[in-house]
Amino acid sequence: MKAPRGTQDLLPGVTEKWQYVEEKLKELSNNYHYQEIRTPIFEHTELFQRGVGDTTDIVQKEMYTFLDKGDRSITLRPEGTASVVRSFVEHKLFGSPNQPTKLFYIGPMFRYERPQQGRMRQFVQYGVEALGSADPAIDAEVISLAMNAYQTLGLQSLKLVINSLGDQESRENHRQALIDHFTPVKEELCDDCQTRLEQNPLRVLDCKKDREHPKMQDAPSILEYLNDESEAYFEKVKAYLDVMNISYEVDPNLVRGLDYYNHTAFEVMSNAEGFGAITTLSGGGRYNGLVQDLGGPETPGIGFALSIERLLMALEAEGVELPIDSKLDCYVVSLGDAANLKAAAIVNELRQAGIQVDKDYQAKKFKAQFKAADRLQAKYVLVLGDDELANNQIAVKNMETGDQETVALDQLTEHMQGIL
Amino acid sequence: MKAPRGTQDLLPGVTEKWQYVEEKLKELSNNYHYQEIRTPIFEHTELFQRGVGDTTDIVQKEMYTFLDKGDRSITLRPEGTASVVRSFVEHKLFGSPNQPTKLFYIGPMFRYERPQQGRMRQFVQYGVEALGSADPAIDAEVISLAMNAYQTLGLQSLKLVINSLGDQESRENHRQALIDHFTPVKEELCDDCQTRLEQNPLRVLDCKKDREHPKMQDAPSILEYLNDESEAYFEKVKAYLDVMNISYEVDPNLVRGLDYYNHTAFEVMSNAEGFGAITTLSGGGRYNGLVQDLGGPETPGIGFALSIERLLMALEAEGVELPIDSKLDCYVVSLGDAANLKAAAIVNELRQAGIQVDKDYQAKKFKAQFKAADRLQAKYVLVLGDDELANNQIAVKNMETGDQETVALDQLTEHMQGIL
Repeated sequence: MKAPRGTQDLLPGVTEKWQYVEEKLKELSNNYHYQEIRTPIFEHTELFQRGVGDTTDIVQKEMYTFLDKGDRSITLRPEGTASVVRSFVEHKLFGSPNQPTKLFYIGPMFRYERPQQGRMRQFVQYGVEALGSADPAIDAEVISLAMNAYQTLGLQSLKLVINSLGDQESRENHRQALIDHFTPVKEELCDDCQTRLEQNPLRVLDCKKDREHPKMQDAPSILEYLNDESEAYFEKVKAYLDVMNISYEVDPNLVRGLDYYNHTAFEVMSNAEGFGAITTLSGGGRYNGLVQDLGGPETPGIGFALSIERLLMALEAEGVELPIDSKLDCYVVSLGDAANLKAAAIVNELRQAGIQVDKDYQAKKFKAQFKAADRLQAKYVLVLGDDELANNQIAVKNMETGDQETVALDQLTEHMQGIL
Repeated sequence: MKAPRGTQDLLPGVTEKWQYVEEKLKELSNNYHYQEIRTPIFEHTELFQRGVGDTTDIVQKEMYTFLDKGDRSITLRPEGTASVVRSFVEHKLFGSPNQPTKLFYIGPMFRYERPQQGRMRQFVQYGVEALGSADPAIDAEVISLAMNAYQTLGLQSLKLVINSLGDQESRENHRQALIDHFTPVKEELCDDCQTRLEQNPLRVLDCKKDREHPKMQDAPSILEYLNDESEAYFEKVKAYLDVMNISYEVDPNLVRGLDYYNHTAFEVMSNAEGFGAITTLSGGGRYNGLVQDLGGPETPGIGFALSIERLLMALEAEGVELPIDSKLDCYVVSLGDAANLKAAAIVNELRQAGIQVDKDYQAKKFKAQFKAADRLQAKYVLVLGDDELANNQIAVKNMETGDQETVALDQLTEHMQGIL
């Protein structure tokens, strides 16, 4: 039997990397004062229809939706923002005096797509949401956090791309301009784009099939349609990025795949050679209407999300080695029933003192136990032979230097704490 | 919109406890040399039918089973062992020279039950599996780890209950004795038990409805039916527990709810007053046939799992306070466009140096910013007024002592690293 298609098992040797990366992301979140929120793995389907958008590929094609035993339509979450905002509204977090509400999450998401490198049906996202501030400084903060998530792990070949989608007025003017621009060639566009042109023409710019169409090159740019307020907002975001020494490129064609974005949109990409076709590492942006759409009071919001799988791919592409210690602290070697019982007691005592220890559980001979200790890269091997047992002692061998000393059993824990 | 029934949001203030507990459980696993495995949230339904057992309540009544868009029957995992064993077989971990394979997992599980205190439809389990050893010492190791998971967090009112279910021969003899014992009163038992008596009579002992039936009191005990080998095995497990100073009670009626157990079975229970009706904190046992049942080579196994939700309930019942620091390191106060820009740069620099900092993002006045810093229990407030800005300095105020000093901006990071 195998794991379902598009999912994977993470095994020892790999999970240590995940632990390290997730620990770093939690530290980073803490430094930026984002606190953790954990929402359920599944939600009522309606949440994503309303909160991600009925016209998106995610909702139309990629959701794991099913009826539970109580005939409710539930869906495995395809992204994190809708759930976080639902929770913000349900628990009235907007009522706290500490605003904005700055949250982070880390956990599995699910999209039924064709599996390929860097795109799994179950994947893990880390993301943050800041709800309750319309200050351009917090747009810059979120972008800084996104960049730092990679830099703190040692990645260097990064590119930050930003854009503004403007406020509602700017978006509507741009929307009309797009319709006017593409309608004369509507028949030449793919079926999806013909629908998009009616429902959400901005997403035509995102189409992979029609990317080469000549009308794409001179499509009206949102930046030409920003009203004064939207332009001023974008200028301030850029000013904050400048004082933070964060380099960026403005790409007027940057459109995020989800419906709810306005004003700032950004993506972090990898420039690393050999990274593969999908170079986007993470993306985010501002969504000032979403809290209200989900039944809460008018509340501005901004966030971003990154895929841990792609982050690990980027680390590999750049050859970054994470500082993970895979050596075992101690291995206890013993032979015979009496020594084995005593060894179990010793192992148990050392572990309770916070020391990492293992022993044999396969009735191996003395020599095979030493070999096992070697394979596990034990720093110290503790030998309990007949002599040692008779004298309530144990031999402690430093496997790096080869030095060996004899230690009284009642001083062993203290001794090991001292040398480790 | 609300989270689905039987699921919950974990919010800031609560997630810090989860982080602390999970971190401790990872440390403990590391000390016992169990390495992390992460399996998918859902599996092919057949895995649980075969690996948990067709006759169990879990498989018959409680699974979240649905068809994916490719018409495969998939199920949200109701427990962790079947998935870990599936992964062990799929990736041929039995081929590694390092045996037994000692794994731990932590993550959400799903059972469609009536929600009540300590029983959610989505809940989080931590568990370990040791595959490849039939040494009674490893049964004791797993039990020690289970007890330590609670003790290391400060819990004291714990009770360990153990039993042996014996090997196949012992179980078959006991099974026949149970059938002989209950068949004369079959009509008096509940419908489920009448079925159980045919399919899996051991589970009649576990029935909540028939608990008071007189025939329950003198039902044949498995311990009377252990053959010599099974009895010797159980004696050795107890001898190991004794040398580890782990107290236990033997309860011949302890039966685990899943079909695959044999030999050692155990439960950890809370004795704490006010803990509620469900006193079982965790359970586990040996399952020597499961790896083969799931297509692997004959491999002994043992494991246990605990619910984090119940662990947290037990901490609360015993009044254990986890040592969580909820204070903010620094809050930067500034006023005016130029100071705000500079403040953003300062905040960003401190965070990159690993210091926790926040600032205002709501255009608050000076005084309101100080109030916000107070509410967040900031240890230090850094004030960037006009004078400081003009002199490239910043005022650093220790909120505990009230002491204030002026620091040059280019020495601020070093200064803060020194005093934090």
